[in-house]
Amino acid sequence: MWPDRRLLDVFNIDHPIIQAPMAGSATPALAAAVCNAGGLGSLGCGESTPDQIRGAVAAMRQGTNRPFNLNFFVHEKPETDPDVLQRTLQRVAPFYRELGLGDPPDTLPEIGPGFDDTRLELLLDLRPAVVSFHFGVPEPNAIAALKSAGIILISTATTVAEAITLQSAGMDAVIAQGWEAGGHRGSHQPTEPAAGVGTLALVPQIADAVRIPVIAAGGIADGRGIAAAFALGAAGVQLGTAFLSCPEAGTDPARRALLATASETDTMMTDAVSGKSARAARSRFAMAMEASRAPLPAFRQLYGLTDPLLAAGKDEVASFHLYGQSARLNRAIPAAELMTALVAETAAAFARLAQR
Amino acid sequence: MWPDRRLLDVFNIDHPIIQAPMAGSATPALAAAVCNAGGLGSLGCGESTPDQIRGAVAAMRQGTNRPFNLNFFVHEKPETDPDVLQRTLQRVAPFYRELGLGDPPDTLPEIGPGFDDTRLELLLDLRPAVVSFHFGVPEPNAIAALKSAGIILISTATTVAEAITLQSAGMDAVIAQGWEAGGHRGSHQPTEPAAGVGTLALVPQIADAVRIPVIAAGGIADGRGIAAAFALGAAGVQLGTAFLSCPEAGTDPARRALLATASETDTMMTDAVSGKSARAARSRFAMAMEASRAPLPAFRQLYGLTDPLLAAGKDEVASFHLYGQSARLNRAIPAAELMTALVAETAAAFARLAQR
Repeated sequence: MWPDRRLLDVFNIDHPIIQAPMAGSATPALAAAVCNAGGLGSLGCGESTPDQIRGAVAAMRQGTNRPFNLNFFVHEKPETDPDVLQRTLQRVAPFYRELGLGDPPDTLPEIGPGFDDTRLELLLDLRPAVVSFHFGVPEPNAIAALKSAGIILISTATTVAEAITLQSAGMDAVIAQGWEAGGHRGSHQPTEPAAGVGTLALVPQIADAVRIPVIAAGGIADGRGIAAAFALGAAGVQLGTAFLSCPEAGTDPARRALLATASETDTMMTDAVSGKSARAARSRFAMAMEASRAPLPAFRQLYGLTDPLLAAGKDEVASFHLYGQSARLNRAIPAAELMTALVAETAAAFARLAQR
Repeated sequence: MWPDRRLLDVFNIDHPIIQAPMAGSATPALAAAVCNAGGLGSLGCGESTPDQIRGAVAAMRQGTNRPFNLNFFVHEKPETDPDVLQRTLQRVAPFYRELGLGDPPDTLPEIGPGFDDTRLELLLDLRPAVVSFHFGVPEPNAIAALKSAGIILISTATTVAEAITLQSAGMDAVIAQGWEAGGHRGSHQPTEPAAGVGTLALVPQIADAVRIPVIAAGGIADGRGIAAAFALGAAGVQLGTAFLSCPEAGTDPARRALLATASETDTMMTDAVSGKSARAARSRFAMAMEASRAPLPAFRQLYGLTDPLLAAGKDEVASFHLYGQSARLNRAIPAAELMTALVAETAAAFARLAQR
């Protein structure tokens, strides 16, 4: 039924539907269920230790013998300017007081680079069928080593220029991530919060600019969105939010409750929680921080200041519930059932468009 | 070839493609050409006097005997708080100095409401086939009078809630305007610059929520986008930016030059020029104003402060070149040729999706 079969061949899967890696929410149970249903399941390894990754991969291989995807963040070792830290401490202090947390910590955690030699060696040992990257691509020698090992590589673009960069770097396919997407935008450089390109505009412009297959992401939640993605020139889709309501997902109860009553206007784009732009449910903390565009600590170091606010459990003050603009369309059904529904709906949409 | 023919019946047209009204750029020559090619041409009357509207309609009727659409802005008579004016004067003064314009004017122009009794009477006299509204709908008595006169009414929604409001008010169809769209967002209330919902997410959620036909708008520029809109559940599309490069459009030379080399990342969302959020090419003035979210003078009164900056002709400092995120796909061909191409491309996309 698929009008473009390139990704089926590249990934050796039945349906060109990728479950997005969503660190913390994409469990081995969820990803394995998607794989077994003919899609490409993914695990988010961007915030995991090598031991955690080994454990997750072992769990995956208990659950499926199909190809799966491991996702990594690509960024330098983060360093925060001391003046930026001091100014940010002043801005977060009122929220610490409101939540009864005392003073914010005056140092930031040491964090390594997103993708390092340890992770490269781990991948060459674990040999997943697919590895995806977020925020860019690793160094050429790492790409060459992974490709030599027969691992298929993909990464995310939020602009045409980024897609061209990814093709030049040797990626086998590019994820075109539009404005609607929940979670972190995969932009290769920091961007203003309102600088996103909508999925409907982004996909055809990227498809025109690269030879490699394009995977549409952002706001796709049912067969209508999948059919639209193919109309726009995509060869496949990546859905994240749509899988968050599945029982196999690691979605925390508070976010599950939000998803059950979600609307298209619940979320905002903010870099005030992690240091990089992400789409998450609005919170008073993030809205207050967004009122100014003063520089913030680097990605993942900023969590050192915001994790205590989130851990306080007062969502009306501060939260980081990541989801996209189509969460209203979510279904709380097992991943295998969701996959079956997505494929059937897409076939129905294709047939409806062909009526004359 | 159209899988949903409801709008063809509602508007009495051949192809469910609306040329957006774009005040100042949508000339009678452009709109008539679209009508004659089987689409629905539109004239933007939101900033026109009654005499100007009479003249434009006479010109339209010279050019076509097909149905056409007149568009009006719906808003109260704008009033600006004196403190807001004073604070804004301080913010715009550096740009006046840079452009050698002296001091900014210390009073704002008197402007009437967007849609008043004079315009209602004018429409009942002129009897266009279709009237569309932006920023909401007029009072119930005006809607009733227009409907009694057999005029088809449509308006714009940027959220599901707005679409439901429009259906309740008696609109015959709703335009679902996504984040990608150029020009002013039709939001019924002011919104933050980053609060837009992408077209791909918005259309199916509105289609699920209303019974009236949905017209997709925002980022649609070729047959791929049109086919995608129908996949998402739309019964038609509205394209604005795509028509700006046609020779019949009133597009100024500076904007034509930008369109010829446009990318998907050229534009920003800003309310700092008109007082309402609009997608326009980035300018240093708008970016500086967006660094703060302090309140601004009311819609259309703010032009009193910004028109002199725009008229200075230094686009690198201040400009208001309105276009959307798919301008890269524009074609500088006559509107009739563009219509033919759009229909052929859409048919090809439908056929491609139906391949098995």
